[in-house]
Amino acid sequence: MNSNDITKIDAFFNPSSLAIFGSLREIMGTAFWAIKNLQDFGFSGNIYPINPAAEKYDGVRGLKVYSDICDISGRIDLALILTPPETVPGIVKKCGEKGVKAIIILSEGFAESGEVGAGYQSQAVEFARNADMRIMGPNTFGVVNPSNGLFTIPPYVDNEKLEDGGIAVCSQTGSIGPHQMPLQDWSFPISKMCDIGNKCDVDETDILNYLANDQETKVIAMHLEDVRDGTRFMEAAQRVTKIKPLVVLKAGRSQAGGKAAASHTGSLMGNDKIYDAAFKQTGIIRVNTWREFWEVPRTLVCQPLPKGNRFAVMTFTGGQGILAVDAASDAGLSIAKFTKETDKKLKHVFHRLGSNPVDIGPAISDSRSQSAANPFETIETVSSIFLNDKSVDCATFTCYMGKHLIGLIPMLVDMFDKLSKNSSKAMNVWIYGTCLQSMEEFGRQLQKRNIPYYFDMDIAVKTHGYAAQYAEYRRSNK
Amino acid sequence: MNSNDITKIDAFFNPSSLAIFGSLREIMGTAFWAIKNLQDFGFSGNIYPINPAAEKYDGVRGLKVYSDICDISGRIDLALILTPPETVPGIVKKCGEKGVKAIIILSEGFAESGEVGAGYQSQAVEFARNADMRIMGPNTFGVVNPSNGLFTIPPYVDNEKLEDGGIAVCSQTGSIGPHQMPLQDWSFPISKMCDIGNKCDVDETDILNYLANDQETKVIAMHLEDVRDGTRFMEAAQRVTKIKPLVVLKAGRSQAGGKAAASHTGSLMGNDKIYDAAFKQTGIIRVNTWREFWEVPRTLVCQPLPKGNRFAVMTFTGGQGILAVDAASDAGLSIAKFTKETDKKLKHVFHRLGSNPVDIGPAISDSRSQSAANPFETIETVSSIFLNDKSVDCATFTCYMGKHLIGLIPMLVDMFDKLSKNSSKAMNVWIYGTCLQSMEEFGRQLQKRNIPYYFDMDIAVKTHGYAAQYAEYRRSNK
Repeated sequence: MNSNDITKIDAFFNPSSLAIFGSLREIMGTAFWAIKNLQDFGFSGNIYPINPAAEKYDGVRGLKVYSDICDISGRIDLALILTPPETVPGIVKKCGEKGVKAIIILSEGFAESGEVGAGYQSQAVEFARNADMRIMGPNTFGVVNPSNGLFTIPPYVDNEKLEDGGIAVCSQTGSIGPHQMPLQDWSFPISKMCDIGNKCDVDETDILNYLANDQETKVIAMHLEDVRDGTRFMEAAQRVTKIKPLVVLKAGRSQAGGKAAASHTGSLMGNDKIYDAAFKQTGIIRVNTWREFWEVPRTLVCQPLPKGNRFAVMTFTGGQGILAVDAASDAGLSIAKFTKETDKKLKHVFHRLGSNPVDIGPAISDSRSQSAANPFETIETVSSIFLNDKSVDCATFTCYMGKHLIGLIPMLVDMFDKLSKNSSKAMNVWIYGTCLQSMEEFGRQLQKRNIPYYFDMDIAVKTHGYAAQYAEYRRSNK
Repeated sequence: MNSNDITKIDAFFNPSSLAIFGSLREIMGTAFWAIKNLQDFGFSGNIYPINPAAEKYDGVRGLKVYSDICDISGRIDLALILTPPETVPGIVKKCGEKGVKAIIILSEGFAESGEVGAGYQSQAVEFARNADMRIMGPNTFGVVNPSNGLFTIPPYVDNEKLEDGGIAVCSQTGSIGPHQMPLQDWSFPISKMCDIGNKCDVDETDILNYLANDQETKVIAMHLEDVRDGTRFMEAAQRVTKIKPLVVLKAGRSQAGGKAAASHTGSLMGNDKIYDAAFKQTGIIRVNTWREFWEVPRTLVCQPLPKGNRFAVMTFTGGQGILAVDAASDAGLSIAKFTKETDKKLKHVFHRLGSNPVDIGPAISDSRSQSAANPFETIETVSSIFLNDKSVDCATFTCYMGKHLIGLIPMLVDMFDKLSKNSSKAMNVWIYGTCLQSMEEFGRQLQKRNIPYYFDMDIAVKTHGYAAQYAEYRRSNK
């Protein structure tokens, strides 16, 4: 990607000014909501509402309304278009005259809806090419950038604040947005988000190349239904995976799914086996479910890559340990065999400790033992001993949370934070318990301190499996 | 299982009176908590606390304390023992003299902890056999029966009320109990729960035989680390699966997991392939993860078995539909091809409808269409049309929930309830959205009305796959 291309794509994520075309009617107007959302999320640039009936509005939410983009004296980096399809080509042409760099067509009703819409779409692309502008969409929610408050989503949004962090999410479905997912409740750390929609111009490879160079992005997660130009994408992916993890959910894996995808986007689907082989070759972490798409990046973004695939687990019951070991085997991890020194140190804490999985239960519940007198201290000591065993590459810690323990969350978070900071191993926490709200609050607090949490032990463990495979790829493809 | 055996096992779940041995110290005492929990959950039978220092207590929580079980004049069906291991054989002997039917040894420190403990365990078993009593445990939380308030769990419990329903859960880990899982938050419908612990006497087959005859139990979910007597278990399973679904999570699937299980319970593990083949042959629904163990029974307990494997799905975005179709293929479901009549009816509602997956998004968002004027009515009409297509056996409905929509929950629940009641097809709902609390509240309300909900689309769909396979087994093994 040359520097001109990067500047153009950057205008989608870091515009210093933007114009919004669409209905400004209070409550009912799409552009009205987009403006409100931009303001609520604290967008730092200038916002210019544009509406042919500008004279009707004595300003909208404190902003002057223009009837023509060319009437604006300042520079416009980005245009958001929320008007009906038939009006869009004309607006794109106008944007070209004004010297806009990038356009997001948020409206629906283009190639995805039939021939007429497809016509408007190609007209818009033609006007944009002539004026050296890039288009994202149509049929998209656009872009989210928590670091500058850019938030182009028009509908009402529950999430009031997004966590600024290292995960970039790019997709072909609007379902990834903060108007659709509980990102705030998850404390999901975001660098950039975008929905490339119909991909009439900007496609997955453009975004991938941009995110590769984006300093704020540590992990890239992409949901794809098709890949426009396979060779170009794979070349880009190969460069990216040498510097940061790329997690891909390729939808339409199954034959039936592929057919459904073709009818959804009008794109051609390749044979899934070809995708699979290409993804492996380029070090892409391929996940298979929507859940994994969200869960796997959360460990990758804040934990070191494991140096090998040797896994350890601490649980509160023996039964949980066995389930974790099954999950680890499924995920291609091996069960770490502790050194004799570790075994000795663990047995010194409590006689029944020593092997992996580490069942901490008896040590903290046997009222006749010293280890049960200070359960927190015991958990911390035991965790630290085996996490720092040289035969361990990654670990999952089980932690119980109930309504009556909510007051202990800060103490627990401090403990895991200390463990993580004093270790170079990849770790995450499986939270289980009796009360969803307390578990969720615990999870949020952990994630804010860069300790990834899971409510599903299998996914916590599987995440280490993915990370270990990717780390192995990195070592072999320096 | 003869009627005498059934009566004995029934004493564990439906005792009219019980004795509790253990510490009665307020706050710190294990038996104190067990009594408090029994009272809080409204246990309908008599409770007799027994403690050698009875004279110290002027009653505990309104109950007279006895120093010897034989001093009690009434009949005692069940004894709960919460005392240290070395005291347990003597207490079991005393129970025999009193004519107790069943004993739950809740304490730890027996076979699972070493030779000394194993000695106490076999002594206890010997005394019980001599007196024709049955023992559950040791190393267990015992039994939960929401219908009569029996709740033998000693520690503090967050769940204040459990949903009385059709799922029986039996396990070899204490982690299944309401002191460990968010059963109330899930509105998880329970008939019976038990943890068979060390299985010194009562084992999985005893429980299975009992639950087979239990009218309140519609689905049985078992977590097993080993099977004591394979032939006996498979014979029982074969009888059970002809009348109700049996979901089994067999832990220790992997070689490493098997080793871990052996060291946890001291039991021998069979080759997993043998289990797998035997489970298939007997119509057992084998799930592989802790998550599935809880999620799969929730559809089975309240929805009809599908008559075939033809799956339909309604989503709010095209992207979700493709993911659902991938999940369906993974789960062995085929994608239902709607009849021409259905296609016509759907197109009549909105021109872009017609095929499966059904993407309802455009029909309710295209402001120029009639279908968008009344989105609820449109969703209900469309759902009803394709759910009742003769080529559909089961369906998953996607439903969005956000903080701002919480007031609509009763309306949505009524709609799904009506759909379910007017159809003989198996259905469930995938809830996604922006706010976990609203999603959880929506889920609880749905489950209370016998509409199973999921936060994971893959599991919602997979559940239909398991149900379809089981239904096929039932048809072929009448």
